[in-house]
Parts: sequence; structure tokens; C-alpha cells
Amino acid sequence: MKKIRNFRIIIQYDGTKYNGWQKQVSTENTIQGKLETLLTKMCEEPVEVNGAGRTDAGVHALAQVANFRIATDKTAEEVMQYMNQYLPQDISVVSCKEAGERFHARLNATGKHYQYSVWNSAEKPVFVRNYTHQVPEALDMAAIKEAISYLIGTHDFQSFTSTKRGKKSTVRTIESIEVETSGKELIFHFKGDGFLYHMVRILMGTLVEVGLGIRNAKDIPLVLEACDRSKAGHLIPAKGLTLVEVTYD
Amino acid sequence: MKKIRNFRIIIQYDGTKYNGWQKQVSTENTIQGKLETLLTKMCEEPVEVNGAGRTDAGVHALAQVANFRIATDKTAEEVMQYMNQYLPQDISVVSCKEAGERFHARLNATGKHYQYSVWNSAEKPVFVRNYTHQVPEALDMAAIKEAISYLIGTHDFQSFTSTKRGKKSTVRTIESIEVETSGKELIFHFKGDGFLYHMVRILMGTLVEVGLGIRNAKDIPLVLEACDRSKAGHLIPAKGLTLVEVTYD
Repeated sequence: MKKIRNFRIIIQYDGTKYNGWQKQVSTENTIQGKLETLLTKMCEEPVEVNGAGRTDAGVHALAQVANFRIATDKTAEEVMQYMNQYLPQDISVVSCKEAGERFHARLNATGKHYQYSVWNSAEKPVFVRNYTHQVPEALDMAAIKEAISYLIGTHDFQSFTSTKRGKKSTVRTIESIEVETSGKELIFHFKGDGFLYHMVRILMGTLVEVGLGIRNAKDIPLVLEACDRSKAGHLIPAKGLTLVEVTYD
Repeated sequence: MKKIRNFRIIIQYDGTKYNGWQKQVSTENTIQGKLETLLTKMCEEPVEVNGAGRTDAGVHALAQVANFRIATDKTAEEVMQYMNQYLPQDISVVSCKEAGERFHARLNATGKHYQYSVWNSAEKPVFVRNYTHQVPEALDMAAIKEAISYLIGTHDFQSFTSTKRGKKSTVRTIESIEVETSGKELIFHFKGDGFLYHMVRILMGTLVEVGLGIRNAKDIPLVLEACDRSKAGHLIPAKGLTLVEVTYD
């Protein structure tokens, strides 16, 4: 009998055409679904893939991490080659290594890095239209930076998630939010120990509202305190969001 | 009666979904067709758009130049706004100016700059898959540069075009072919007074064959002398090609 081994992969994908990471009953068109179908075929028995971040429909990944336990004689390199051979052009396995028996991509993750791209120009983003969200108006970057200063640190982010209050903690720590300028793009880098459902997109929607003068930076502490989704800004479109890195201790 | 004015536009497009620049009888899905339909609607009379370069199906443009003569009271800025409002997300007018009565985008062009992107890695080009052509093998750049040296200058490029010999001259001048490295991409910049049908793609296919050792750089002068399409390399895929700039005196 073949020994069961635990593989850790790093995956890159363009989320444009997919219904997000997580497999669903209603539809098969998810990244997790694609990977599981492929590995189940390879192993001739059901395979479950655990992803570190459950990216939404339309969200991309430069380096999503996942793991799966399979019984195979293939080397990690051969597993990667098999996967890339059958995966579509918009999903790529960039690394595959054997991991410790107990490694779990989601449960062991200690940090995440997401980026959100704002196309800050009236010109259309012809070649990156699926990877950026256009905001043609000038943004008040000083106000945005002030708003960011209130978000850094450990807070209850209940106001910044679409999940209704439940038993699970909505306290998270944001390490940093940095803004990089690249041509007509403003790329916001969010680093933290983890992000709630829709959290980066609601934070970003709120920051854009501050930048447009629709909302005052000084009100951010009140939004945090309220623990009320309706006090925060809008859910900005998914396509500007990319999972950049997942970290482990 | 409104005066007829000549407008010069610069257009950017992602050619992935289109059957090239030039309108055809069989299909409407061309860049020229999209622009003419739009302007014909705006002006309520047939409008013809002259493009500087007749890009093939799947070829992109960062700055294609075109002109059209219309009777309108709109300013150049208003014409541009109208066009961008109705054009799809993968076509953008980035500049619109009134030109001299006799300006013709194709007939007056004195130079063109095309680039061809080769993705020189075994990793998949997930996010730029429609704008680059993957060649995973290592390329002998010294051999490619030697081959390039024979192509520079004024030659009969009959071997490097898909058009059968006719009355029109196939003599062209290539000013320079420069190679830029950008991450995993090798970007080849072709500058010259004009390029024949498929010329950049056949030149590039030939250079890749030289880089792979399938063909000797020293044979390039013989290929030029032969004036025979069958002596040159393969027609490389369209998606790696982008029209970068059109110059005028």
C-alpha cells in the first residue's frame, strides 16, 4: 500500500472567470473544485484541498498556499508537472513540496498579505482591466493615510465584515497598510494576522470614500467602535484584490 | 452646414477578442468596425476610419493612430468622451486632436515601433497569458543578436512576409531590433519605416529558431537573398505582438 503524504503547494491564479476559491454545491467553477477534480483523477480516490485563504469570486492570487494528503509514488516535482499539464492557463502551480504530516494551509497560517489596486486615472485600464478598480477622481492621500493610522493594530473589525455577529471572534491585528504608486495604479498592501470575510474590500471601500471627501478620516475610530457593518464604507469590487502571500511560523 | 473636420486619434486596445484592425465582409468584430459603427451613429452618416497599422487578429496596440473626417460641432475632447463612453473596456481612445485637412494616418506614417513579448520560463504566464508567447527553453541570446545584425538596414523582406510577390515593393528598412528583459519576459522592440504583412511575426519566429539552435544565425543573409517565404522561420503567435508607436515627420 502506498504511504499517505502531505503536499504543500503554492498556486497562482487569475480569478476573473471563477466563483472564488471555495467549492460550492451549486457550482463547480471554483479554484478548489478544479484542483480537487484533478487530484481525484490522478489518485483515483477523493482528495480534499485546504486553501489558506478563501478568496471571493473575481479575486486573484499571486501565491495562495494549499495542502492535500494523497497516496502516491510520484515525487513533488511530478505532482506539480501533472497538475500544470491539466490545469487551465489561468491557474498555475508554482511550487510543490512535501510537508510535515500535520501541516494545514489554513489552520497553520499566521499572516496574510493582500493587495488592492486602484486605477487612479480617467484613462481606461485596457490591459489590466480585470486586476484593478478605476477611481478617476483625485484622492486626498493625506486623509487616506490618517484613516489608515486608526486601522493599524488590534481591533474588533465587526464593522468591516459581511458576516453577521456570531460566536467567532472578529478581533484581528493589522500590521501595516502601505500604499505603492505604480504608473496610474495606487496599490494598497494590507498585512495582518488574518482578514474576515470581505474585510479588505470593505476597508478599501471606506478608504476610497475618505480619499474622495465623502467621509472624514477622524470618524474611523467611531466606525470601529460601532461594531456595525452599516457604519463602514461600501464593498469595493473584487477584481482589484489579490492574495500576495501567506506566512507561517 | 457643418464644416468637415479631420480628427487624429490615438487608440489603445487589447486585441484578444477581435478579428484584427481591418473591417471585413465576413465579420463585424474588428477594431475599425467598432470605431466606424460608433462614429456613424454619432454623425448620422457613414464614417470611414483610416488606421496606421492593420494589426492582425489577436495583436494589441498601445498607441495605434487613426484619422477620420466628420462634420460635427463637437470639440476634439467631446468626440473622445463620446467614443470612450460607448467603446468596450478593451478599446480606449487616449488622445483626439484636430488634424490638418490632408493628414492620413496610414499614408503619412514614416515609422512604426512594434514589440514582441516572449515569456522565457517554464512557469505559466497566468496574468499576461494573452500578451506574451511562452518559450520555456533557454535561448542563445548571442546567436539571436548575431541574427539581428544581418536584419538591420534596408533589405528586400520578401522571405519574411505571407503576401505573395506582387507589384508592390517588399523592400523595407529596419532601424533597430532591441531586446529588453523584464522579469520572465524578453521584449523585442522592432523599429522601422514600415513592416509587411506578418513580417514582425515571421522575423520573430525565425529569431526564436536561431535562439533554440534549430537554425544558424549565419544563414540569415541567405534567407534574405532567397526572397522565398519557405526559407524563413515559422509565423509566431499573434498574441505576443503589440503596436507601440507610429511616427510622422
